Amino acid sequence: MAVGERRMKHWGWGYEDQEPTPEERAEMAEGIRTHLGFGAPDVERPMPLEDIELREPRIEPPASLAEICSSERYDRVAHGLGKAYRDVVRAFRGQVENPPDLVAFPRSEKDVANILEWCADASAAAIPFGGGTSVMGGIEPRFDDDRPAVTVDLKGLDRVLEVDHTSRAALIQAGATGPSLENQLREDGLTLRHFPQSFEYSTLGGWIATRAGGHFATLYTHIDDLVESVRAITPSGNWESRRLPGSGAGPSPDRLLIGSEGTLGVITQAWVRVQERPVHKVSCGVTFPAFAAGAEAVREISQAGLYPSNCRLLDEAEAALTGASDSGALLVLGFESAHHPMDDQMELALECARDHGGDPGQVSSSDRRSRRSPDGDGDSVSAWRNAFLQAPYLRDTFVAIGVVSDTFETAITWDRFADFHSTVMETADRALARVCGNGRVSCRFTHVYPDGPAPYFTILAPARRNHEVEQWDEIKAAVSDCVIDAGGTITHHHAVGRDHRPWYDRQRPELFVRALRAAKAELDPSGILNPGVLFDPA
Amino acid sequence: MAVGERRMKHWGWGYEDQEPTPEERAEMAEGIRTHLGFGAPDVERPMPLEDIELREPRIEPPASLAEICSSERYDRVAHGLGKAYRDVVRAFRGQVENPPDLVAFPRSEKDVANILEWCADASAAAIPFGGGTSVMGGIEPRFDDDRPAVTVDLKGLDRVLEVDHTSRAALIQAGATGPSLENQLREDGLTLRHFPQSFEYSTLGGWIATRAGGHFATLYTHIDDLVESVRAITPSGNWESRRLPGSGAGPSPDRLLIGSEGTLGVITQAWVRVQERPVHKVSCGVTFPAFAAGAEAVREISQAGLYPSNCRLLDEAEAALTGASDSGALLVLGFESAHHPMDDQMELALECARDHGGDPGQVSSSDRRSRRSPDGDGDSVSAWRNAFLQAPYLRDTFVAIGVVSDTFETAITWDRFADFHSTVMETADRALARVCGNGRVSCRFTHVYPDGPAPYFTILAPARRNHEVEQWDEIKAAVSDCVIDAGGTITHHHAVGRDHRPWYDRQRPELFVRALRAAKAELDPSGILNPGVLFDPA
Repeated sequence: MAVGERRMKHWGWGYEDQEPTPEERAEMAEGIRTHLGFGAPDVERPMPLEDIELREPRIEPPASLAEICSSERYDRVAHGLGKAYRDVVRAFRGQVENPPDLVAFPRSEKDVANILEWCADASAAAIPFGGGTSVMGGIEPRFDDDRPAVTVDLKGLDRVLEVDHTSRAALIQAGATGPSLENQLREDGLTLRHFPQSFEYSTLGGWIATRAGGHFATLYTHIDDLVESVRAITPSGNWESRRLPGSGAGPSPDRLLIGSEGTLGVITQAWVRVQERPVHKVSCGVTFPAFAAGAEAVREISQAGLYPSNCRLLDEAEAALTGASDSGALLVLGFESAHHPMDDQMELALECARDHGGDPGQVSSSDRRSRRSPDGDGDSVSAWRNAFLQAPYLRDTFVAIGVVSDTFETAITWDRFADFHSTVMETADRALARVCGNGRVSCRFTHVYPDGPAPYFTILAPARRNHEVEQWDEIKAAVSDCVIDAGGTITHHHAVGRDHRPWYDRQRPELFVRALRAAKAELDPSGILNPGVLFDPA
Repeated sequence: MAVGERRMKHWGWGYEDQEPTPEERAEMAEGIRTHLGFGAPDVERPMPLEDIELREPRIEPPASLAEICSSERYDRVAHGLGKAYRDVVRAFRGQVENPPDLVAFPRSEKDVANILEWCADASAAAIPFGGGTSVMGGIEPRFDDDRPAVTVDLKGLDRVLEVDHTSRAALIQAGATGPSLENQLREDGLTLRHFPQSFEYSTLGGWIATRAGGHFATLYTHIDDLVESVRAITPSGNWESRRLPGSGAGPSPDRLLIGSEGTLGVITQAWVRVQERPVHKVSCGVTFPAFAAGAEAVREISQAGLYPSNCRLLDEAEAALTGASDSGALLVLGFESAHHPMDDQMELALECARDHGGDPGQVSSSDRRSRRSPDGDGDSVSAWRNAFLQAPYLRDTFVAIGVVSDTFETAITWDRFADFHSTVMETADRALARVCGNGRVSCRFTHVYPDGPAPYFTILAPARRNHEVEQWDEIKAAVSDCVIDAGGTITHHHAVGRDHRPWYDRQRPELFVRALRAAKAELDPSGILNPGVLFDPA
């Protein structure tokens, strides 16, 4: 840890210096309680780092790696849990049951290879770690056995190594966070434009390992679509695909690594497809009498070949939160381009919306070339994005005032959507009533495809203090069973990790996981890489 | 073979009843010789089927499978070679050295499973077969050992089983050819719109197994993008992915099967993304003083987010053949939509073209809703497509008149394109001069991406009769070495098969092929599935 480097809080979202004062937290709490109608009257405080009981490290690094390894309390706690609600509430209470024994901070690919070699020798698990923002237990060293764990934090590999402006591509190290890589790309007038909700802390390598979903509602929804080639270090050597705009030579090697969640190798760098910064932007909010009508409009837009960058449909409950709609659902539509105005596309999309009873508000159009506005987007899409990035901060307050919160997300084909939506909403409502006695469920679309939407559900409910994890687990199981029974995917962009395993096991072809396990045995013969995510070790 | 069913010629392209008469062939030959300035004066005739010396079948089917297995001469010859030039010339001369011992025609997935089970018991290889249009030795039973071969022809599984109009998706059996599935989809007003050059004969299963490239120059270039889920029969059981518009749950199971070329399982059916038939079409030819200027225009168009359905840049030699341009390169641009007119997109693309010295011809715009034109597209895009589909027929004539012909295709990032193009062209020119004493090389783009084009090269040269295969192999080796040395992919959409193996072996990450081989050992423990394509059996 360099002197003066900002550290993320050991228990929740954001940097330590962003933590609100107790007074600020109390004020936020009051606002939330008033809005929700539930939440505890007192604001609990997190257990201080130094009070957390921590298992002693079970291994020591060899002399050759000691310099890049840490067993400091902060490092072990901060790498011991991800950022799901069930993680934050445990860290908040100091329940860090599976801290890594060591955290390694490689400065080079050679360091990564040396760490893996040593882990194999020492029979220790190695957990690749980007921003630690997994909400599915993807980085928690929670194993079926008691092997020691070494977390491999890639923050030292955070450079944009090369920019190919001609091909709109860049070679970026896996440990670069969203802001870091965007700042570096900005020097060339380029942007990756991949903005997951974890954008501030998560990393390119993490996005690739987990098939993260990004900014674009259509076309380039997942990081998958932006990857041109990948390099990974495995215990059996290096894996590097050729840099190609497209290929038909055998199954895609990249697509096997994308989503492998650290089980096959440590992704160290990737060539990604970047683009010029958009200068033409147009956005509009459209209200609908009901969510179902909005969904039909979105279906038509998604099948019309219009490719909006934003096409976020909020149901009545979520729309009310924005203040933009007193009743009814709200569709937030946006188009953007670095090349030409997108007003015509917006007008075509609004026609689709009107055909289904939509009532468009004011269209906001901006052209940065003519307006010379500063880098901040300064429009409603930007406002949305800022609010979007604030959501994980809010969760810390929910924990402090006894509110259970969770989000779960999926994708489903249009033909099944209406039934799917109602059964999932009912199941979640019933689960909240049963487990928490109260609560609210809402839904929005984050991404849409010609063949179906990616619905994203948010739940908020009164917590029983010190029983939040059991409550969360029971709700999670009920809604996940429902999602899988009704034909959805257990995750559209939150990955599988350890927490989604029971439902992923029902979803993926059994033969596929056998193939994956065989591939892993070849690449990682000692089975050290992130054991327990995606599939059981052989 | 049902009575009256049309059969493909045993040696070349097209149905038997499409074979030109000797007089017609002679007339075509004269035209080609005049145009090329080379080619033999006489027109050779193919060896009649009954004169071909054929190895005796080395196995017999069990009684339970006898009804669906054939060892008839026609079936064994027609399934013994693909449709590369090196295949057609051998079949033409009756050199069918590796015929399958049996051809099985399953009528159901159960039949497929039974065939695989028997092949494993009998230590016979099983080769999944769609239309047999592989140009890379993908279906030729050419092995390192002398095991018997059973070709599994899926033509009996050719139905569109289900149409989901709401989600724009259809469940189609793997053995459906392009025309067959399009005819069935047309009843619902839908289309898959995947038109590889082999469209008339090749099948959905073959497209998926080989990552075929299709109609669209941008966005949905490969069949990969149209696949919603896949079912395959493996020797270890069935593999079926969930039908989803998008997912982030683990690496994509579909992407491991797509491009697996029959090594992992027999693809039996897939849900694919279909669309409404386009009614708005606009096309335009743009001439450029030189190919390089056209390439720069195409780069700008590909990075502008305009998504033309056609964006085919022909170099000077190819443009001259079309008659559309006496000098200079020709860009064939097309946009289409089922939803809205695309004239504005065309105008924006033409602006890009003009910026790079392009001279647009007449823009042809059609709206089928207003013009009530019949199903035939009736425009220049359609004319292009018809000519495009004729090319493989022409190759049969090249064989008959002593002209070596080949096409090879690749993809490369824009930053390397100019050097890549010149070195590949020079290498091909030198190879033709050395091997054939003469010849011509030309290039076009078939597909384009924001980060690079997919160049497609055509070579034509005078053959030494009875030495065409050696000539072809020597030219192929020279240009393939060059493509790989210069950073390209050995194939953008022709697959790897057996003929691309030496270069694919240099291209793919070694660890990836080790992972694939391990996956295969799990799914196909007896190693019966299409041994020798993609990688050596374990």
